[in-house]
Amino acid sequence: MSSTPDSAVRTYIEGHSAAFLDDLAEWLRIPSVWADPAHADDTRRSAAWLAEALTATGFPVAEVWPTGENGEGAPAVFAEWPSGTPGAPTVLVYGHHDVQPAAREDGWHTDPFEPVLTDGRLHARGAADDKGQVFFHTLGVRAHLAATGRTAPAVNLKLLVEGEEESGSPNFPALLKTHADRLACDVVIVSDTGMWAEDTPTVCTGLRGLVECEITLHGPDQDIHSGAYGGAVPNPATEAARLVAALHDDDRRVTLPGFYDGITELTDEERRLIAELPFDEDRWLRAAHSHAALGESGYSTLERVWARPTAEVNGITGGYGGPGGKTIVPASARLKLSFRLVAGQDPDRIQALVRDWVADRLPAGIRHETVFTGATRPCLTPIDHPALRSLVTAMGRAFGQKIRFTREGGSGPAADLQDVLGAPVLFLGISVPSDGWHAPNEKVETGLLLKGAEAAAHLWEELGSTGTHATGRPAA
Amino acid sequence: MSSTPDSAVRTYIEGHSAAFLDDLAEWLRIPSVWADPAHADDTRRSAAWLAEALTATGFPVAEVWPTGENGEGAPAVFAEWPSGTPGAPTVLVYGHHDVQPAAREDGWHTDPFEPVLTDGRLHARGAADDKGQVFFHTLGVRAHLAATGRTAPAVNLKLLVEGEEESGSPNFPALLKTHADRLACDVVIVSDTGMWAEDTPTVCTGLRGLVECEITLHGPDQDIHSGAYGGAVPNPATEAARLVAALHDDDRRVTLPGFYDGITELTDEERRLIAELPFDEDRWLRAAHSHAALGESGYSTLERVWARPTAEVNGITGGYGGPGGKTIVPASARLKLSFRLVAGQDPDRIQALVRDWVADRLPAGIRHETVFTGATRPCLTPIDHPALRSLVTAMGRAFGQKIRFTREGGSGPAADLQDVLGAPVLFLGISVPSDGWHAPNEKVETGLLLKGAEAAAHLWEELGSTGTHATGRPAA
Repeated sequence: MSSTPDSAVRTYIEGHSAAFLDDLAEWLRIPSVWADPAHADDTRRSAAWLAEALTATGFPVAEVWPTGENGEGAPAVFAEWPSGTPGAPTVLVYGHHDVQPAAREDGWHTDPFEPVLTDGRLHARGAADDKGQVFFHTLGVRAHLAATGRTAPAVNLKLLVEGEEESGSPNFPALLKTHADRLACDVVIVSDTGMWAEDTPTVCTGLRGLVECEITLHGPDQDIHSGAYGGAVPNPATEAARLVAALHDDDRRVTLPGFYDGITELTDEERRLIAELPFDEDRWLRAAHSHAALGESGYSTLERVWARPTAEVNGITGGYGGPGGKTIVPASARLKLSFRLVAGQDPDRIQALVRDWVADRLPAGIRHETVFTGATRPCLTPIDHPALRSLVTAMGRAFGQKIRFTREGGSGPAADLQDVLGAPVLFLGISVPSDGWHAPNEKVETGLLLKGAEAAAHLWEELGSTGTHATGRPAA
Repeated sequence: MSSTPDSAVRTYIEGHSAAFLDDLAEWLRIPSVWADPAHADDTRRSAAWLAEALTATGFPVAEVWPTGENGEGAPAVFAEWPSGTPGAPTVLVYGHHDVQPAAREDGWHTDPFEPVLTDGRLHARGAADDKGQVFFHTLGVRAHLAATGRTAPAVNLKLLVEGEEESGSPNFPALLKTHADRLACDVVIVSDTGMWAEDTPTVCTGLRGLVECEITLHGPDQDIHSGAYGGAVPNPATEAARLVAALHDDDRRVTLPGFYDGITELTDEERRLIAELPFDEDRWLRAAHSHAALGESGYSTLERVWARPTAEVNGITGGYGGPGGKTIVPASARLKLSFRLVAGQDPDRIQALVRDWVADRLPAGIRHETVFTGATRPCLTPIDHPALRSLVTAMGRAFGQKIRFTREGGSGPAADLQDVLGAPVLFLGISVPSDGWHAPNEKVETGLLLKGAEAAAHLWEELGSTGTHATGRPAA
């Protein structure tokens, strides 16, 4: 139920897009790579920058929140803008301001932290994941006010922007618990996902969970001569490779005993809906920069990335990697593994499985350490949830098209939000697969960023006009 | 048959040991890491330094020889000192002046290219492998002359010191062919091996061969998000690991079809001789800096490293190796593999096996390149060879102990010398397992270096006094 002409929102956004993109570029110049200790200060600077920008946007409250038991975590940013309208629902927008590591030599055409705007695309680490998608809310709420003539939003608007999402959000559940009172809300809007395609706007209904670990294997106390000793002592690089190879069987199913226990299998109806999407595997492969599909037998590509758990090697290092040869048995090898989880898989249980499995498979003479570096629960929002109607309406007004449903293969702390705050979680994201999340030359389509701002402006009006019952919350 | 008192040789060597070690240290300061293009000039400098040192020793001929079709290889050094005695046999000493890569951060306690002498040990990259063992010949020949009162050696003495041994000696066979006339000899003495232990002097009778390769696997054109795509496209790090894991079966036998075809199996007598050596596996493991023995089922540790072919991973790299996590499917992965060969295995045939095996095992969507970076034939000298008696006598005079026989698991171009020059190959080496070849903190026992010089001095006298028939060469 909308009362404001869509054109009022659009006109405001178009008129302010240049300044919006300039401000976003300034934020993108801060290399908030929290995973790399060398960028800890940059990540703190990123939080301070955002709090200032939210104050400038008009939020009466904008605070930097320390995280971790002793403030050793990355700072989060919290902002709040009360509606002033009695009975207005409370919405909490979630995003993150930390970004993936990026270095020019990884294959970037330009400096990853010097944004470049060409042909309607803004290239920079974090442009899509997730700074761009956080920042469109600053434009969206101002458009909402300008178009409605209000001085405060139609909803009680809260933002929580964390700084450890790319590191598995280790301090996020504790942060939510500590500030549960101030974060209390009727609905959570996660702005850290994407759409099916630029011409196929969609709403995401679920994310996979994530368990990450680093396994270090130690063999000889130092690199040793492969001629003098090779073939007679265990080689940690060989053992690391044997672990990786043993992760999957020939059907590319994960072999860890109990790994699939208790998972929510796809229903026939869900498989039908997924199969109906306009999926072009060649196009998907191009977006994936990949040259073939390969995965668990018996499932389609979309099913594999949306609804099936996986085991992936993110990094493997051991021995000599420099120019030429070096005939050694290396002293050590290291694996970085990640496991994507689906509904029904508990990260703690999976961590225990992985730990036991690794310990059981190594020969005498190989010491090992398994360190878990992050865990995120999977998350699935029912398609028939009442609050979803407001979001689909808002998206429909912004895009002028039918809105379809998807899931995402990636992970985020959405499940924590749902669990700790007891509120339903919706996803408002405008990124597209070609944006290159976690990859060199990450970009965002600026036209879609502005659509995201439009959708947000409409969403606050939609949710405000229908009241809290539209959020699916029972009346108090 | 010796005529000179052993003490004359020993007194000369002891009196000149300090200057000898100073000169060796100067050579060791030159980082002749030919495998690393950044050290190409250093390797050239190393060759020039050696030629000058040989001239200073008294060799009337000392030349730097370019290698490769257009001089692109590492320079070798040739020196010659004619006996002047009619009927004197001609001996060619072989060694190498290039060294393995070494960097302080690999675990060196001191700069690998700043030699440190403490407690009778000289620490530096190349101290044992092989500059120390080449350089003791400068002291040995001078001791031989001083003790015998000769002005030229009792043998026609030639030295050939190459610069690409650690890179698999790619240009060495061609070099031998080009200079076959000047290198013509009755016997080859290879000074690039070791002994059983400081208190158990031995003579080596064989080396394993070597095939080295680098396999690069390409998956996505760039690193991609493991959430968005993981589990649905091939991961080159996973495939690299699966290749490595498939190299060996559960009995740790190499699985490449045909790998063991035609090899010279150990005889019962050879197994008995090996089993009789005073082998202490715990001590061997300590020297190997390793914590367990592991290898091909059905063979002892010494049999595994001396007489069995192997497949080893020298390096594996793929994806993210920095601090923290990075949830990607990496664009590429790289393996550095080496295969040790035994008598009966032809490097060309093994290279073809490896190439085909890799190509057959990769799924669609993974491109690959297999580059062979070095190949060396295996080499085995019969224990009953007549020239061996002179060597064993010379070693016995230097060490005052029974000399036993061993093999070495390492590789060298000995087989090329035997094939191209048509001369028997003997091994005179004094390094011990604890010297740490190819490892951080490589060292040489200076006492053994001087024993090596003693043995060389005696050997020239032994071979000179018995004439060419002692070398096993038929009379012309």
